Amino acid sequence: MTNDERWFPSHLKELGEPECLELLAEHHVGRVAYCDDLGPVVLPVNYAVDQGTILIQTSPHSTLASRLRTAPASFQIDEFDEYTQTGWSVLVRGSAAYVDPTDLPADEDRPHTWAEGQRSLHIRITPHEISGRRLLPA
Amino acid sequence: MTNDERWFPSHLKELGEPECLELLAEHHVGRVAYCDDLGPVVLPVNYAVDQGTILIQTSPHSTLASRLRTAPASFQIDEFDEYTQTGWSVLVRGSAAYVDPTDLPADEDRPHTWAEGQRSLHIRITPHEISGRRLLPA
Repeated sequence: MTNDERWFPSHLKELGEPECLELLAEHHVGRVAYCDDLGPVVLPVNYAVDQGTILIQTSPHSTLASRLRTAPASFQIDEFDEYTQTGWSVLVRGSAAYVDPTDLPADEDRPHTWAEGQRSLHIRITPHEISGRRLLPA
Repeated sequence: MTNDERWFPSHLKELGEPECLELLAEHHVGRVAYCDDLGPVVLPVNYAVDQGTILIQTSPHSTLASRLRTAPASFQIDEFDEYTQTGWSVLVRGSAAYVDPTDLPADEDRPHTWAEGQRSLHIRITPHEISGRRLLPA
C-alpha cells in the first residue's frame, strides 16, 4: 500500500509500532470496522489490549457478533485538538475471531464496557499491520 | 440490518437523522472508511457538510483518491467523555465520488484541512443511510 501521501504535509509524522501500541494501551474507547455487502461499518466500542491483540466484548446476538465470527476487521483510535489543530491516530488492520472463554485474560484485563447489558461474547482482533500518524502543530 | 443490539443497554438512545445532521454540521474532523482487498480502512480527515453530503479534500495522488473514485464509503464522527463514560456517534453510510470543481461550494464552505500540502481533489460522500447513538449517563 502506498500510504505516503495519505496526509501530505510537512508537519505530519509517522508513528512507529511501539508508539502505536503504547497509545492503544493507554486508551479504552476505539472504533471497530468491518465490511458488509454495502461497504464499511465503523462502530465505537470499549476495548482492552491483550498480548498485542485487541479484545472487545459484545452480545452474542449483536450484528457485530454475526459479522466478526471470522472476518477481516480493523480497529482505530485517535485524538484531536480543534484549537491547536493537532492530533494523532492509530489504525490496526487484522482479523477478528471469537475468543474461547478459557483464553480470556483475568477479569481486570478484559474490556470494561460503559454501556449496560449482557455482553458475554469476546472478540479478538489480531493485527496484521499497525500504523499511526501524528499531526504536529503547524 | 438489525442494529437493535449493537449497543444493548437501557441508557442508550438512538439519534434521529436531524440530530445526526446537526452533529455533523457542528464538527470538522471525522473518519472516512473504505474497504480494500484486506478489509476496512479508517482514516481521520477534515470535512465539511455540503447540501446533506460530506465533502473531504485530498491529494489526487493519495491512496484515498485511488480508492474513492467511485466506491462504497462511510463517514463517522463521535465524541466520548472518559470521566462520565458517556458519548455519541454518527455513522454515514454511502458512496464516494470525485467532485467536479464547478460543483464545489464557495471557498468558506469547503473543508478546511489542518494538514499542509496540496489537496486539489474533493471527494463527496453521498449518504444512503445516517444513524447515530448517544450513550447517556448510567
